Amino acid sequence: MAAELTAAQLLEKHRPTLDQALEAIRTRAYWSPHPEHPKAYGENAAADGQAAFDALRGKRFELDQPGTDDWAGEEVSPYGIGLNISYPHPDADVLLPAMRAAMPAWRDAGPQTRALVCLEILSRISARTHEFAQAVMHTSGQAFMMAFQAGGPHAQDRGMEAVAYAYAEQVRTPDQAAWSKPQGKRDPLELTKSFKAVPRGVALLVGCNTFPTWNGYPGLFASLATGNAVLVKPHPRAVLPLALTVRVAREVLAEAGFSPDLVALAVDRPGEGLAKTLATRPEVRIIDYTGSTEFGDWLEANAPQARVYTEKAGVNTVVIDSTDDYKGMLGNLAFSLSLYSGQMCTTPQNLLIPRDGITTDAGPKSYDDVVGDLATAVDKLLGDDARANALLGAIVNPQVKERIEAASGLGEVALASREVANPDFPDATVRTPVMVKMDGARKLWEGAGADAAYLSECFGPVSFAVAVDSAADAVDLLRHTTRVKGAMTVGAYTTSGEVEKLVEEACLEECAQLSLNLTGGVYVNQTAAFSDFHGSGGNPAANAALCDGAFVADRFRTVEVRRPARES
Amino acid sequence: MAAELTAAQLLEKHRPTLDQALEAIRTRAYWSPHPEHPKAYGENAAADGQAAFDALRGKRFELDQPGTDDWAGEEVSPYGIGLNISYPHPDADVLLPAMRAAMPAWRDAGPQTRALVCLEILSRISARTHEFAQAVMHTSGQAFMMAFQAGGPHAQDRGMEAVAYAYAEQVRTPDQAAWSKPQGKRDPLELTKSFKAVPRGVALLVGCNTFPTWNGYPGLFASLATGNAVLVKPHPRAVLPLALTVRVAREVLAEAGFSPDLVALAVDRPGEGLAKTLATRPEVRIIDYTGSTEFGDWLEANAPQARVYTEKAGVNTVVIDSTDDYKGMLGNLAFSLSLYSGQMCTTPQNLLIPRDGITTDAGPKSYDDVVGDLATAVDKLLGDDARANALLGAIVNPQVKERIEAASGLGEVALASREVANPDFPDATVRTPVMVKMDGARKLWEGAGADAAYLSECFGPVSFAVAVDSAADAVDLLRHTTRVKGAMTVGAYTTSGEVEKLVEEACLEECAQLSLNLTGGVYVNQTAAFSDFHGSGGNPAANAALCDGAFVADRFRTVEVRRPARES
Repeated sequence: MAAELTAAQLLEKHRPTLDQALEAIRTRAYWSPHPEHPKAYGENAAADGQAAFDALRGKRFELDQPGTDDWAGEEVSPYGIGLNISYPHPDADVLLPAMRAAMPAWRDAGPQTRALVCLEILSRISARTHEFAQAVMHTSGQAFMMAFQAGGPHAQDRGMEAVAYAYAEQVRTPDQAAWSKPQGKRDPLELTKSFKAVPRGVALLVGCNTFPTWNGYPGLFASLATGNAVLVKPHPRAVLPLALTVRVAREVLAEAGFSPDLVALAVDRPGEGLAKTLATRPEVRIIDYTGSTEFGDWLEANAPQARVYTEKAGVNTVVIDSTDDYKGMLGNLAFSLSLYSGQMCTTPQNLLIPRDGITTDAGPKSYDDVVGDLATAVDKLLGDDARANALLGAIVNPQVKERIEAASGLGEVALASREVANPDFPDATVRTPVMVKMDGARKLWEGAGADAAYLSECFGPVSFAVAVDSAADAVDLLRHTTRVKGAMTVGAYTTSGEVEKLVEEACLEECAQLSLNLTGGVYVNQTAAFSDFHGSGGNPAANAALCDGAFVADRFRTVEVRRPARES
Repeated sequence: MAAELTAAQLLEKHRPTLDQALEAIRTRAYWSPHPEHPKAYGENAAADGQAAFDALRGKRFELDQPGTDDWAGEEVSPYGIGLNISYPHPDADVLLPAMRAAMPAWRDAGPQTRALVCLEILSRISARTHEFAQAVMHTSGQAFMMAFQAGGPHAQDRGMEAVAYAYAEQVRTPDQAAWSKPQGKRDPLELTKSFKAVPRGVALLVGCNTFPTWNGYPGLFASLATGNAVLVKPHPRAVLPLALTVRVAREVLAEAGFSPDLVALAVDRPGEGLAKTLATRPEVRIIDYTGSTEFGDWLEANAPQARVYTEKAGVNTVVIDSTDDYKGMLGNLAFSLSLYSGQMCTTPQNLLIPRDGITTDAGPKSYDDVVGDLATAVDKLLGDDARANALLGAIVNPQVKERIEAASGLGEVALASREVANPDFPDATVRTPVMVKMDGARKLWEGAGADAAYLSECFGPVSFAVAVDSAADAVDLLRHTTRVKGAMTVGAYTTSGEVEKLVEEACLEECAQLSLNLTGGVYVNQTAAFSDFHGSGGNPAANAALCDGAFVADRFRTVEVRRPARES
């Protein structure tokens, strides 16, 4: 088939971007090719995006995939709108062989062409960011601006970062080598060697509800860029953003002369548990998963034929020891607790505060002062309903709502959750965060029988203000929860070099990413692609980090062919 | 403690070598800093090495490790000599915490210092290559020259290659980054970020009988160079080479100002199964294993807290389609089948030969011609007992001997195994290879019930001359065994571009390393560090390759600490 998108066109259009991405992952300075501001996408982009989203509702999402034996899908927006879109349900015995058959040509295309095709996919997704923003908003419950940024440019950045890592990894070994081994007075032994990056097989992406694109793109693009076919199994409540992604990918692949079946969609029937069935297929050799610890552990134990990358639950801690910007600290924490109703794997949960209080630039503050002032800061941040809606978004599922309601039974409530009305979406469940006081005495968390509520993840806008006996105790509790439960993020506020060193050492030993003294416009729960690592891969919250060499290096293998030099 | 080996000394002595190694893994041209010829080590080296080996026998091997609760060891050389050396048996509850405690200072030393210390260890091992050669010979049963080369310089090369990969991987991320994100008209957001490579934990090396150093060094040095402590659990019959390695490593670490407990030895009591106990300890976060598929699979399934790298059994195939150097082909294959009595994971087992014969530069040859001529070539190669002993070495264990004896019951014997007397070691079991004719008709190997002997690994000097219906059938059988059983090596002889393409495509799809038309002094069962990959990590014979980015990238994690730029 004649490619509409030639290699030369792709090279001219995207190689400079790839080079910039490669430079960014080396320096880890700020870089992004994807604008964050909605207005950067053109005057009509918002209206066009809304119209495109509206046009998708109530219809079949056609993808022209082989092996579609049924149509499935029952997404209802956390904002109360039924999407009524149905998607392909796969006959794996037909779809997976078709995907495998597509791989040799993709493999032979080589790392550069694969990277450039991936960048073209991302570029077309970027052009439709407003449409994706609607899709992410109405599946995750994120407020519009967050759905736009995290679901659009930030997710695209993470995808491109994975492409850059995948490309760099594959070209570390040359295509050819001439090998000549001296043999003293005899002729040298001479071989010609060729090396080729080959895919592992079909990669399965098991998507999550809260960040379908942001958490999905790294694995998807890392696998595709390393020559694998990718089967996308979205969360049943967050299909649309990944279905759109699959559609764009298939279009670009076909235009570039490859089989569109290198990327395909698989959507569950209600209660089917399709992810389990697909994860154990022999064709599936890579799995990327974001979600519960329970299913992540299941995948790790039950899919031995595949390399499994998981991001699971964790308990994120902030140690509050002292600060020279009390107001800035409170504002920063209030924002982190509120953003997307705390429904981020990176949202702080345990705020460890010395029982005897802390020192600040505004004078000494008791434990109750800190808790009360933080509660006030949250109230102030969310006092205006319009602003509250813009920050909080909607509660993503009934379990989160139940956790909010149950939190008040766990201890003294320092900050009560309240309902916020959303005038645009009256059926949305919008709640402000709840904060509960807890006793962090060592005997309550140390030892086998300890069962303090703050020792487990309580996903959603629930945080615990845990009174500890000292900063050193706070660090020990941080170590304990990180070692046992994992952590995606750790924060700390301190003006003490000694405490800073303790916290830093704990994070180095327990392998957790640390943000120190954030008081401005950067938040502990946000990471930037090309610069920040998301997760460490070294504690129980995740077995991989976004993105590093380890995230891509085992998605392909290198096959060597060697022959006597005379032959070549 | 004052380091006797300063950082400046290490830098001056080893940085140029590290740079050469880094260049070699980029170009994959021939390179080695370790001489292959025994005479290169000095006039008295051979006698000194022999004397040093003799002095070790009949004694305790003192290592001054914490937590030694017993002494164990019962090595008997395959050449018939009892070594009578006893080694530390660990109290893991004492030893493992001591190893963990040694890690933070090693972590803080950084990638370069770790790499240079590893190179100093290798350099001291290199200086004692003759002593190691004796130790490898009298544990593996390799003949002296092979024990010297494969156990000495080639193993040291593989260790250095792992150090180079580990170093390169860790310095891909900078130590520091300044991050400045534009905010339109407002001030940019500015953070200072630091990144540090942190170890996973204690790495467990489970050694093998046949190549204790060659197969052990890559994992040992990859783990150590990435900041982990390494606990070495040798095969009970091949302790000494790794015990010497541990001793040298501990000496160098201490001299460089680090705790010697970063490397320790653990030796089984008879029948204890110590590897299982150690592999499931929570401190153990990395495992490297070479050996049986059964135990490799056990480790992969039962040590979920660790990243497990395994090299297991496989079925290695050579496709014989045609050749323009019949004599060279026969000589090359005869050598590969004979070297170390075929007791290599890379030795060919299945020789697939068309039933109707092959074309050669010496005219057409029938299946029987090829088999007969190959048998003659082996006989000729091993006709002289001195030469036979120098090539074959000794049979490593009674199971291999039993397999040789059982082989004649599997089919028509094309080449019978014979006993060779070893005048220097009358108790050694020395055997020439056996080759058995087999029918490779498709119905005998295709389908669920097929149980042809050539479908499983028969470790030792047993090969099968399998008559196939065509070259295409040979490639299908190659695909089948590689997919189901794995392969460390594939060889092929062909002058047909079409057949070459078929074999190459099969190797790319089944992920196996291919050697084409080897007729000279390079053999399918040998790979050279810095240039050849050993295994692919993509078929059931091994889940990792020696050595590539994937082999090192997940042995450490990167911890980031970010803080407002004003603080730095």
